[in-house]
Amino acid sequence: MKFKINTPFPKLKDQLKEKIDSKTKPLGALGLLEDIALKIGLIQNSLNPSLSHPSLLIFAADHGIAQEGVSAYPPEVTAQMVYNFLKDGAAINVFCNQHKIDLKIIDAGINHNFPQNPQLIDCKISYGTQNFLKGPAMTLEQAQIAIQKGAELVKKCADQKCNIIGLGEMGIGNTSSASALMSLLCELPIEECVGRGTGLENDQLEKKKEILKKAIENYPQEKEVLKILSYFGGFEIAMMVGAVMKAAELKMIILVDGFISTSSILTASKIYPSVLDYCIFSHCSNERAHKKMLEYLKAEPLLNLRLRLGEGTGAAIAFPIIQSAVNFLNEMASFKEAGVSEK
Amino acid sequence: MKFKINTPFPKLKDQLKEKIDSKTKPLGALGLLEDIALKIGLIQNSLNPSLSHPSLLIFAADHGIAQEGVSAYPPEVTAQMVYNFLKDGAAINVFCNQHKIDLKIIDAGINHNFPQNPQLIDCKISYGTQNFLKGPAMTLEQAQIAIQKGAELVKKCADQKCNIIGLGEMGIGNTSSASALMSLLCELPIEECVGRGTGLENDQLEKKKEILKKAIENYPQEKEVLKILSYFGGFEIAMMVGAVMKAAELKMIILVDGFISTSSILTASKIYPSVLDYCIFSHCSNERAHKKMLEYLKAEPLLNLRLRLGEGTGAAIAFPIIQSAVNFLNEMASFKEAGVSEK
Repeated sequence: MKFKINTPFPKLKDQLKEKIDSKTKPLGALGLLEDIALKIGLIQNSLNPSLSHPSLLIFAADHGIAQEGVSAYPPEVTAQMVYNFLKDGAAINVFCNQHKIDLKIIDAGINHNFPQNPQLIDCKISYGTQNFLKGPAMTLEQAQIAIQKGAELVKKCADQKCNIIGLGEMGIGNTSSASALMSLLCELPIEECVGRGTGLENDQLEKKKEILKKAIENYPQEKEVLKILSYFGGFEIAMMVGAVMKAAELKMIILVDGFISTSSILTASKIYPSVLDYCIFSHCSNERAHKKMLEYLKAEPLLNLRLRLGEGTGAAIAFPIIQSAVNFLNEMASFKEAGVSEK
Repeated sequence: MKFKINTPFPKLKDQLKEKIDSKTKPLGALGLLEDIALKIGLIQNSLNPSLSHPSLLIFAADHGIAQEGVSAYPPEVTAQMVYNFLKDGAAINVFCNQHKIDLKIIDAGINHNFPQNPQLIDCKISYGTQNFLKGPAMTLEQAQIAIQKGAELVKKCADQKCNIIGLGEMGIGNTSSASALMSLLCELPIEECVGRGTGLENDQLEKKKEILKKAIENYPQEKEVLKILSYFGGFEIAMMVGAVMKAAELKMIILVDGFISTSSILTASKIYPSVLDYCIFSHCSNERAHKKMLEYLKAEPLLNLRLRLGEGTGAAIAFPIIQSAVNFLNEMASFKEAGVSEK
């Protein structure tokens, strides 16, 4: 699947900077909010950008690697948590309700048959990935279907006038996928890419490192991004990769969450580097390797609240700050309008 | 003026922790939000705390020290910015409107006569402080009146069912006051307490340091907190000190903004250390010495967005995150309720 992703049109850059600097505040005093206002203005090619119909897509899938005991929680928690999302009981529900963000729950490949539910979007590729310690997590074809489905979901959001999407995920075992992807794509030793996930103890963390090391040694060392993605999975990550690419193609703002969410950005950026121009990194998670992954992407995250929950929670919590950036650009008076003396 | 400030009643600590840990998320995965939920639960002595009628008080005053050229902006900007607040044009207006925070604009001692305006609360102590390079900024009596007025304002907020107040300020020259207070109260060399304020160039920053150094050398080295406060001013800081003390007495949540706002917390905490139990530090500002001041207070700020605007903007921007902390505690399902397997 091909995407047509351009860098945002830079025509308004000087005018946007001038508008930001004309506001009644010391130059640069709104810090990162000024950078975000500029970025969004460029993405929308507008001096008066706006956020419309914010949506958060939460992609859930199971992982064969979870059989190796790489998570503190049993694999059935993926499906259980999806029921929790459907019943409005999880953290992401609370924060999306708070900020009126449209939450879309997607079965990207959960090892469970759900009863029909209009709230659950069925994009199931399979009942979880294969165990990548023993071979590829998915076929190349499955990876391509996942990318396509992710892209279609974002297209539907755009058709409903959404111009900002958050990327969340749920999948017991998925920090292992993200760590392996990071190691291969950033060419870093796996030890630097692994963390405690949902809360491993020291000995469990060592075991996780060992397993991932062995899995990477088994990998036939092909450099093609799609091969790496399909080998280490998971379905939710591949679907997010498609979502990211389509969102960038449609010039939407992409609100990135934590370690897994960022791993999909990393993957997409290896194919289309310009996707990064559309990303706002909501937070640096407490998952150890996330900081390094963000540094690799030269990303400055908005928040650092020691979150490590996934689901898109960091993206949802950060949403009002993005809104603040847009609001100050649109609503604040200029020095001239307010009759305030300049420096 | 005496206040009766107790530490929050710790009775519910274990129950609150248990409630937080029972929620459907890995232990500790909401990071700082969990600490805030606990803190607010203790302050309100409730397992189901709530935020009610949030208010942001913005105290504005002029500073004699501004005559020495310690700011990048001329002193008349204090009054001009207050007109901007009254016309809903400043950053703090935008963010308070966004979050439905009740903004109260207070003339704590501006060098200007304003026409009657129901939006402007007249607590003018004088037309700006005296120049503390040449003597005390205010009399002890003025400091005491300011503290009392700050306390009365907070009492009125509480009477209107407000249980969380943000502390903002406006006053050309007030980083100089805050730096001097920090140096004296934390017993740190003034060089470590000075920053660029609204945007001084290198040579202006050196000049500011020189002036503050001289002013501190001139000070009769009395250790009493009220003497230090009255000597280095300003009226807005003294009024915030009273506001902080009263808010803690009334068991309200205090949402602290940047460098000046924190200097009032520092001052109040030297008289009543327990005020810190009621404070949530919204952000670490880009004013260089703020980080050190926060460290001195053992405060972990919520945001680090390179803000350096004052007005209470950091407090307002952080407000929805405080709300998120309260909401997850009240609204998230427990493992048991959701039927999710534990670790």
